[in-house]
Amino acid sequence: MAEKFDAVDIIRSKRDREVLSEDQINWIIDAYTRGIVGDEQMAALNMAIFLNGMNREEIVTWTKAMIATGETMSFEKLSKKTTDKHSTGGVGDKITLPLGPLVASYGIAVPQLSGRGLGHTGGTLDKLEAIPGWSPDMSNERMFEILEETGAVVAAAGSGLAPADKKIYALRDITSTVDCIPLIASSIMSKKIAEGTASLVLDVKVGSGAFMKDLEQARELAQTMVDLGTDAGVNTRALLTDMSVPLGLTIGNALEARESVEVLAGGGPADVRELTCALAREMLDMAGVHDADVEEALNDGRAMDCWNQMIRAQGGDPNAKLPTATHTHEILAEQDGYITNLDALALGVGSWRLGAGRARKEDPVQAGAGIEIHTPIGTKVTKGQKLLTLHTDTPERFERAIESITPGISIGEQAPAKRQIILDQIS
Amino acid sequence: MAEKFDAVDIIRSKRDREVLSEDQINWIIDAYTRGIVGDEQMAALNMAIFLNGMNREEIVTWTKAMIATGETMSFEKLSKKTTDKHSTGGVGDKITLPLGPLVASYGIAVPQLSGRGLGHTGGTLDKLEAIPGWSPDMSNERMFEILEETGAVVAAAGSGLAPADKKIYALRDITSTVDCIPLIASSIMSKKIAEGTASLVLDVKVGSGAFMKDLEQARELAQTMVDLGTDAGVNTRALLTDMSVPLGLTIGNALEARESVEVLAGGGPADVRELTCALAREMLDMAGVHDADVEEALNDGRAMDCWNQMIRAQGGDPNAKLPTATHTHEILAEQDGYITNLDALALGVGSWRLGAGRARKEDPVQAGAGIEIHTPIGTKVTKGQKLLTLHTDTPERFERAIESITPGISIGEQAPAKRQIILDQIS
Repeated sequence: MAEKFDAVDIIRSKRDREVLSEDQINWIIDAYTRGIVGDEQMAALNMAIFLNGMNREEIVTWTKAMIATGETMSFEKLSKKTTDKHSTGGVGDKITLPLGPLVASYGIAVPQLSGRGLGHTGGTLDKLEAIPGWSPDMSNERMFEILEETGAVVAAAGSGLAPADKKIYALRDITSTVDCIPLIASSIMSKKIAEGTASLVLDVKVGSGAFMKDLEQARELAQTMVDLGTDAGVNTRALLTDMSVPLGLTIGNALEARESVEVLAGGGPADVRELTCALAREMLDMAGVHDADVEEALNDGRAMDCWNQMIRAQGGDPNAKLPTATHTHEILAEQDGYITNLDALALGVGSWRLGAGRARKEDPVQAGAGIEIHTPIGTKVTKGQKLLTLHTDTPERFERAIESITPGISIGEQAPAKRQIILDQIS
Repeated sequence: MAEKFDAVDIIRSKRDREVLSEDQINWIIDAYTRGIVGDEQMAALNMAIFLNGMNREEIVTWTKAMIATGETMSFEKLSKKTTDKHSTGGVGDKITLPLGPLVASYGIAVPQLSGRGLGHTGGTLDKLEAIPGWSPDMSNERMFEILEETGAVVAAAGSGLAPADKKIYALRDITSTVDCIPLIASSIMSKKIAEGTASLVLDVKVGSGAFMKDLEQARELAQTMVDLGTDAGVNTRALLTDMSVPLGLTIGNALEARESVEVLAGGGPADVRELTCALAREMLDMAGVHDADVEEALNDGRAMDCWNQMIRAQGGDPNAKLPTATHTHEILAEQDGYITNLDALALGVGSWRLGAGRARKEDPVQAGAGIEIHTPIGTKVTKGQKLLTLHTDTPERFERAIESITPGISIGEQAPAKRQIILDQIS
């Protein structure tokens, strides 16, 4: 059968800063998924989009076209309302772990479809897999059962959702076209819309450890995604949150799982607790539970009960000892002063080099590897004081990890301004 | 062995408008030729170059890197001086056919390494192959023999010259990154420098039928190529010449061969004769023959003798009847007036649709197909007068050819300004 368009013409249009039509976008996304349009053609088009942009209408069409290449899910059969959260990815970002059970403890379903980590930011599945026995694999029927019973579930995102996005994402990764707002927004939202949640809160990270390095860019990305969600009938809001330093006091899979349990027990680092509660309030509000006292639900054990049920429902033992790495190394203060920076990217890359992350999709991760932060930003320290403990099963990795981490630590004479976690809100 | 660079970083640099280093360019051209860098990565890089450009130094390095991927030729063993001409491609551009023998008749070697046509401009090999028996295939030894004996030869460009260019050109063709000055200049000059000529005149076409639609762009392309040649030790000059209307009165392989013989016989259309002579004077001047009376060499049969020797040396019969198409169709004037335009692109595409050109590299061409122009631009015509004759062996092609040609014909009340063939000169 003759094809409706020629990829060469569509690439030329975007190269020459023209607006792509709905028909052109629908055709090229579909034809690329079918293998009619080649990787080299989609790579050239992505670079043209990266450099010349897409307008709102093009982004909406691009997103819908990616959704149309695969299946979509629906949670309408559930007796509960559904809500979901998506983070654009940060260092030490373990929020999904306490957040799902916390929201679910109010009788709301939180079907989190998550991925594994690639590069310097960790993945939710890697963190939960540090818990002995826990698995993200289950049938759709079982997922519905868990949602009815406990409300919280974390499953691996199915490969049938938006297959065009998977193919395009893999291509963007090797052609330097990842950090582009129209392509990031359509990639995230095509998956989230296909997942069929009724409402969604986006945690858009800003700072050295995030895709978006400045607030203006992050605001544009957030607004684009909120518009895409709203347009597709998903009640969508976004928080812009700080990712200049890591979230909490741990980076790495088992270390972050442990810290998440501390938050569920009513403790944990103030920033993790603050962000978990803020996101929970947004999700509950969209699901019809207004003005919930979520701090109380953490303090009185309701969220922890739900966590224990969720871990058990997915084969895990919530009381099992978490794995620890075989080797540690301490980084000490080289002078007196205040900790003025612990750069998120530097520590993220350091943790990744220690073995907490993977360089290729098929690589394994070390459950125990990562970084413990003893002196968060603002702490007054004295020379020789312990700042960080690095963990790994492969001590030959310390050297390159330290090379990344050390330049990220700043000690100054003046205490830094108090860090603000939540920078803006878009709805 | 570990690679020196990562393609992703080099793509990102050009995407972010940085200047690529000599090492980066050398590596990526070589690695792409070796298959280490993928087509999708080179496609993304080409699009970034298309949109963000390359500076002079980058273009020089890019060109040298492409030459370094293959063999280079040398004509230093010849007893004659060598010179060559390259046209950026136009409609009805048969200049190579009379030019080679004309220059060779002065005892200069003109080793033309040519290609076949693709798209709306014809190829020199296709035109010469219309002559019964003629072939461009020969050993390097035989090519040297012919050059010593007759001075003129037209051979197929060897696949061993700048293989990186061949691979990149094929990619550019399907990713809309063809008409970009740094990539055009480096593609042309990598082949021409690898071919080892001592001097080179470039015929840079300007107008609807050419890559370069305006004089400013064409001047930039010409200057870039002259600089590249000069830098590589090839004495290089360029003429900027008009390609808003076809050259001469014929388009198509056998039709153009016939017209070339007319020029060699001292006749032929004025524009073909003027451009042939201008290019010949440049080539002879660079080869040390100053102020040659080339018009005389056409009129007195010296150039024709050389043509006959060249055709025979390559297996052709210069006296054989040229093939003609089986079907013709005449286009008549729809009103009285002056011919004010015969758009080169419209007629080029028309001739291509009649069967004179090919859509894919492996397609055959019709030797007899093409267009005869009876009323060149400026002619005063009356309604019903014969303007063009279309030729093809496949009359079902007339309809689509006419669709392309008709809008390219303009008849006005006022005679147009006299057409200037040579627009500028760069050396």
